[in-house]
Amino acid sequence: MPKRGERGGVIDALRDGQQSAPMRFFSDNAAAACPEVMAALAAANALDTAYDGDALSGRLNAAFTDLFECEVEALWVATGTAANSLALAAMCPPHGAVLCHRDAHIQNDECSAPEFYTHGAKLLLGEGVGAKLTAETVTAMLDRVPAGVHWAQPHALSITNASEYGLVYTPDETAALGELCRARGLGFHLDGARFANAVARLGCAPADLTWRAGVGALSFGFVKNGGMSAEALVFFDRELAAATRYRRKRAGHLLSKGRYLAAQILAMLEGDVWLRNARAANAAAARIAAAAGPERLVVPVQANELFLKVTPAEAAALRAQGFDFYDWAEGEIRLVTSWDTDPAHTDALANAIAAL
Amino acid sequence: MPKRGERGGVIDALRDGQQSAPMRFFSDNAAAACPEVMAALAAANALDTAYDGDALSGRLNAAFTDLFECEVEALWVATGTAANSLALAAMCPPHGAVLCHRDAHIQNDECSAPEFYTHGAKLLLGEGVGAKLTAETVTAMLDRVPAGVHWAQPHALSITNASEYGLVYTPDETAALGELCRARGLGFHLDGARFANAVARLGCAPADLTWRAGVGALSFGFVKNGGMSAEALVFFDRELAAATRYRRKRAGHLLSKGRYLAAQILAMLEGDVWLRNARAANAAAARIAAAAGPERLVVPVQANELFLKVTPAEAAALRAQGFDFYDWAEGEIRLVTSWDTDPAHTDALANAIAAL
Amino acid sequence: MPKRGERGGVIDALRDGQQSAPMRFFSDNAAAACPEVMAALAAANALDTAYDGDALSGRLNAAFTDLFECEVEALWVATGTAANSLALAAMCPPHGAVLCHRDAHIQNDECSAPEFYTHGAKLLLGEGVGAKLTAETVTAMLDRVPAGVHWAQPHALSITNASEYGLVYTPDETAALGELCRARGLGFHLDGARFANAVARLGCAPADLTWRAGVGALSFGFVKNGGMSAEALVFFDRELAAATRYRRKRAGHLLSKGRYLAAQILAMLEGDVWLRNARAANAAAARIAAAAGPERLVVPVQANELFLKVTPAEAAALRAQGFDFYDWAEGEIRLVTSWDTDPAHTDALANAIAAL
Amino acid sequence: MPKRGERGGVIDALRDGQQSAPMRFFSDNAAAACPEVMAALAAANALDTAYDGDALSGRLNAAFTDLFECEVEALWVATGTAANSLALAAMCPPHGAVLCHRDAHIQNDECSAPEFYTHGAKLLLGEGVGAKLTAETVTAMLDRVPAGVHWAQPHALSITNASEYGLVYTPDETAALGELCRARGLGFHLDGARFANAVARLGCAPADLTWRAGVGALSFGFVKNGGMSAEALVFFDRELAAATRYRRKRAGHLLSKGRYLAAQILAMLEGDVWLRNARAANAAAARIAAAAGPERLVVPVQANELFLKVTPAEAAALRAQGFDFYDWAEGEIRLVTSWDTDPAHTDALANAIAAL
Repeated sequence: MPKRGERGGVIDALRDGQQSAPMRFFSDNAAAACPEVMAALAAANALDTAYDGDALSGRLNAAFTDLFECEVEALWVATGTAANSLALAAMCPPHGAVLCHRDAHIQNDECSAPEFYTHGAKLLLGEGVGAKLTAETVTAMLDRVPAGVHWAQPHALSITNASEYGLVYTPDETAALGELCRARGLGFHLDGARFANAVARLGCAPADLTWRAGVGALSFGFVKNGGMSAEALVFFDRELAAATRYRRKRAGHLLSKGRYLAAQILAMLEGDVWLRNARAANAAAARIAAAAGPERLVVPVQANELFLKVTPAEAAALRAQGFDFYDWAEGEIRLVTSWDTDPAHTDALANAIAAL
Repeated sequence: MPKRGERGGVIDALRDGQQSAPMRFFSDNAAAACPEVMAALAAANALDTAYDGDALSGRLNAAFTDLFECEVEALWVATGTAANSLALAAMCPPHGAVLCHRDAHIQNDECSAPEFYTHGAKLLLGEGVGAKLTAETVTAMLDRVPAGVHWAQPHALSITNASEYGLVYTPDETAALGELCRARGLGFHLDGARFANAVARLGCAPADLTWRAGVGALSFGFVKNGGMSAEALVFFDRELAAATRYRRKRAGHLLSKGRYLAAQILAMLEGDVWLRNARAANAAAARIAAAAGPERLVVPVQANELFLKVTPAEAAALRAQGFDFYDWAEGEIRLVTSWDTDPAHTDALANAIAAL
Repeated sequence: MPKRGERGGVIDALRDGQQSAPMRFFSDNAAAACPEVMAALAAANALDTAYDGDALSGRLNAAFTDLFECEVEALWVATGTAANSLALAAMCPPHGAVLCHRDAHIQNDECSAPEFYTHGAKLLLGEGVGAKLTAETVTAMLDRVPAGVHWAQPHALSITNASEYGLVYTPDETAALGELCRARGLGFHLDGARFANAVARLGCAPADLTWRAGVGALSFGFVKNGGMSAEALVFFDRELAAATRYRRKRAGHLLSKGRYLAAQILAMLEGDVWLRNARAANAAAARIAAAAGPERLVVPVQANELFLKVTPAEAAALRAQGFDFYDWAEGEIRLVTSWDTDPAHTDALANAIAAL
Repeated sequence: MPKRGERGGVIDALRDGQQSAPMRFFSDNAAAACPEVMAALAAANALDTAYDGDALSGRLNAAFTDLFECEVEALWVATGTAANSLALAAMCPPHGAVLCHRDAHIQNDECSAPEFYTHGAKLLLGEGVGAKLTAETVTAMLDRVPAGVHWAQPHALSITNASEYGLVYTPDETAALGELCRARGLGFHLDGARFANAVARLGCAPADLTWRAGVGALSFGFVKNGGMSAEALVFFDRELAAATRYRRKRAGHLLSKGRYLAAQILAMLEGDVWLRNARAANAAAARIAAAAGPERLVVPVQANELFLKVTPAEAAALRAQGFDFYDWAEGEIRLVTSWDTDPAHTDALANAIAAL
């Protein structure tokens, strides 16, 4: 299992030497916005009420309530970091702690945004293959925290589905964690930056990975999946929403023309564009994984990320053929497919890896 | 002078009864995005590097350096609240204080976002007609703070140009404040949510209202002026930018597809679209002000906001004719024009007010 | 009414020129610790359990429950600033607001400690003679805050009894505020840095100024009244105590040898030493006030502080006679008596003022 | 090496079943205050100026400057947690990170006080026997943090001497870390809760363990070593002191009768009482360690803490003889000696362990 600290750096933006490469597999954040999103922005481009008082923002709750088959409160925000941090702030007081995996995005890639929004709550880190936690590992984490005021007490659990290593939590795995949270009085947050990829993979109802499994708040990612600048924070525990609306404003995340965010989300929910996009990304990853063969896979490929074992020479050979990707740990690379990855690029990459 | 507390509420979104009115003058936040912005978004819609590593984001510093005739560091953010708060956090430690007008947006309309970003710095409030401060009033504010650790010491001054009452600070007025800041060791922040309207009114160089007058950081508003979701935080004091880039990420404001924000800003800078839009809004306001006559004006109209003295019966008469606007203080209403206010609506409103 | 901002500085420590004066009336903070406190410290000086697990700390709840005739949770802390800030943090979320008087200690003399502990809640300031608020002024303050996420909503009211100008709130006045808090869903905090002086003045039950009047949390001051380093934070709303115990630890206020703080408090509660001390201080102030006559009093003298109208020449004359005190506003001085003010000094001062 | 998470709890206060035991070895926090401290409190018990404007507080800088043979700024605070957290807040911005050992007190025993004072800085955790870090392990920690705004960048290193396992850092070991901090631009904080024990053990100059080795700030513990309620925060990097004085006030740690804290510290510095006390505690621990023999020691005994390997039956046998101590990890107990540990108790314990 690669350890986070062993990789050299994550930001695609910093990888200047690779920016001219024609076939990019380094981040789904780099993909374009899908046509439905662009059309929705154009359609929304008229005078309306400011902030989230407009007609489109007013439809969010109903749209997500339909999708999840239960009453929810849904807020748009501009980034997944904001969605995650607002959710954690809703669940954990400043003197509390949030449990998450050592490789969690909230721990490693958000520059202490959770600490900013929660006013200094601690993240307590657990272990597990592929950035996944289990009820057993979380129980052990809980048992390590003594009772008493000298220790920040756990108030919430946060997992990521699909995980930071592209693995999915099944409904059952999620429910086991949800049951533990219920028993121990913890809030349960799901970082769903790639929730669409997980749902697409599992073919289950969105409800099965969320409230039916005990999840109280979901950061529902759209940007990596063909959106432009809108993510949704969905509260199944609706009591958390009211204070969050204040926190969103206070964090400068209540855009004055919020209708353009609502428009993006509604466009991707309509006709299941979000699932179509995720399926396309997953399929491209599966195509490459099949060509690579199980020996090369650091972990199984279940969503749109691949972690492959390659030698430096092999990595260089792939790059020489025009493939742009990311070094991860020693002897490992990360490849990410997107909703709009060119099938020709996918085929070319699959063939190149098979030929290594 | 209307007192802030006496108005009933500001959010247009909450004024449900007015939302069906056909001729809206209640907020420039409600206006559409201008065609150049929409075209730029479409043009930017392709794969590029994530966050602010893309080509468009990379052009921001140069574009603003050209505009301001000096080297600057410029960051996109999604809201003016975020821009203001990041600027203040860069200038004031948690145990310090920021001086501003009692009617300042940062005090009244941002749900303590400055306190969130600065980790609890105090806002010390001054008085002045039309939400404007002077070197004299600020000096008096400074003199009221005793030395010593029992009192949060002032570290920054924040003014708004055009002000919350639609008045402009001239270059000389700004420079007097800037000189005071320099002498007293204060950072100097300019909330320029309607900076374009101020520049359009004054016909001066943008530099004259900013760094030449001692301003260290500018929240340069684009959204109220025809943008969709991008504001610029411009640092003339460039040393403040480095930590701010971390704070922006930490606040969840580093959008993963930042190129769409950069695109909006660059489109509005190019060919002075920002000035064209602001001039249109100012002209519409001037047209109405002229029709209203000086007796009705609470303060002179210098930008795109009008504060008029009207009786409740007069206000009702205007609304009955289809004009949508906002009650402000007792016996006063606020009207705001936009870059795209329909000239026919402007004429109709001017005539209706003249006929009161 | 003197405006706070007009005085030159409060810290006695900074008034170096006055430190050699033999007859000090500038602060009750400067007084010694009373004999009962010193004896209790000596008696407590043995091995016991750390933090607040010792026998003396274990008696606090019962001691205050007796005193207040209702079940309370009581915590020792080392300063009134910590007590006040912990109470406010228990009552107000970071995105909320606390109502207080413009002259409140929490606003003016604690270097934004409330903002630190509440993580940036806003203090909304009201007016009133002698630093006192009324149900009417607080209602007006509440009515000035619009509903909606753009404005930090009030979550708590904080008053000071005796006030920063040495006036007392009667049980009825307090109860009117308490009823308002109940009706509007606000927490009600009482800064009782000089609570003893207020009770001594009013001759009422401590309960009448606190929980019977709707107070949820009291900062019960002992240090100004003959203690050395212990204040009590008393929760009538006992549900607020649990999280506060974590916040106290997190703020570094859980002393590892807490028994020495508990000992001080218990010693001052026993035999009503706290009342005896306060009565002595009040009596000294009353003696001086009587000599000064009503014309000289800025506000009536009801506790142990006097605010007198004197000319600069008169102030100088008093100082020339060896009296040490504090300039307050233009043409006003502040004099404070203590539990141990020497009666000879009191007499001398009374005579000197009468002779002005 | 015992892992922190595996012990059941630390607070002595909670170990109710042991509180009646006559021979207590569970915490130096439980010890009494030494006679010099009590005498100094009595001597200081007179009217003086408030806060830290009194004569005793005014002597602190000079006293520590003498002790450390260089100009320092020294502040009293009431707890080590406050001293540590203030030091870290002075060295690390909210968006930064502090490096420390996984077993550090600041990580494990302060309920996220460092996160409170730093406004959410991250603690990055390293490994090492006996809670000690080396230049090598710290270098590896630094190298694991990628450059860029997505990651909280290290701004400070904090070590504890004597460590949480009772090991000392030598001057050379400290200097190697100090050189690394200098080279990498990190602040260097020393948690000296048991600094006296380390100096007593090493026989070196206090300067050799601090500024000569690159330390910028020291939390100098007095309470565990015979004090009552005063610790010192000593800045060798004196530029950090000014803002810290505001932060101390803002945290409610500027006691209004600060002279009683200064008095304690001065009393323990005078005549090297602090060293005498530490030597006594160390000697008692050494006596027990010698009796136990090296096989039983989890780590060598270098200060006043012992970690012994004992079976549950052996631990029970010791308790049955009246010894009160603390279970640590599986099969391990912790024993702590104090400045005033009764030699008869020490002998009895040594004999009992030898006889196991």
